[in-house]
Amino acid sequence: MRALTHPDRSQLHIETVLEALANPVRLRIVRRLAAGEELTCGTVLPDVPASSASHHWRVLRDSGVLRARREGRIILHTLRRDDLDARFPGLLDVVLTALDAEPDDGGRQP
Amino acid sequence: MRALTHPDRSQLHIETVLEALANPVRLRIVRRLAAGEELTCGTVLPDVPASSASHHWRVLRDSGVLRARREGRIILHTLRRDDLDARFPGLLDVVLTALDAEPDDGGRQP
Repeated sequence: MRALTHPDRSQLHIETVLEALANPVRLRIVRRLAAGEELTCGTVLPDVPASSASHHWRVLRDSGVLRARREGRIILHTLRRDDLDARFPGLLDVVLTALDAEPDDGGRQP
Repeated sequence: MRALTHPDRSQLHIETVLEALANPVRLRIVRRLAAGEELTCGTVLPDVPASSASHHWRVLRDSGVLRARREGRIILHTLRRDDLDARFPGLLDVVLTALDAEPDDGGRQP
């Protein structure tokens, strides 16, 4: 079973985080996790094929946007809001506010 | 000669703007234009091949991040800071602050 690795807070880079956020499926994930709950892939993306969903979760994890942990056979995800707010103060808030002001997925389909 | 089209402020979308910003060459451009000057492509990206540079300028223009205007045979670019600040308050500032805190290009080569 592959380990779930995460960059430290000090290893977060603005460009990598922007790349991770710049995708409609990943923005859906971020928006959904923003409420603070710890959620499984299937709960957040019931309509996205597993292989595609798994890629998006990995991009978000590798960039430091979210944290994943195994619990038995499932993986639970949380937004790394504290780390993002510490490194890029205001970034998450401005993105979430903008998403709330638009239709789902910024008006585009994933 | 192709017209230089720009989206209106109301047509800016967070996802498209994030996509435009999520690239080391385009972040170089944004960082350079942030001082407020109106600059040519060659001034900002003297080391990037014209075809590649032209793609990046177009992505930034189409997403609404910058404005371009022809003056004779050259094209001058400015950052659409007012429009970005109005639609996504704080986004540009947090990105520029994060870039200033990192080596050029977020520590990665374009």
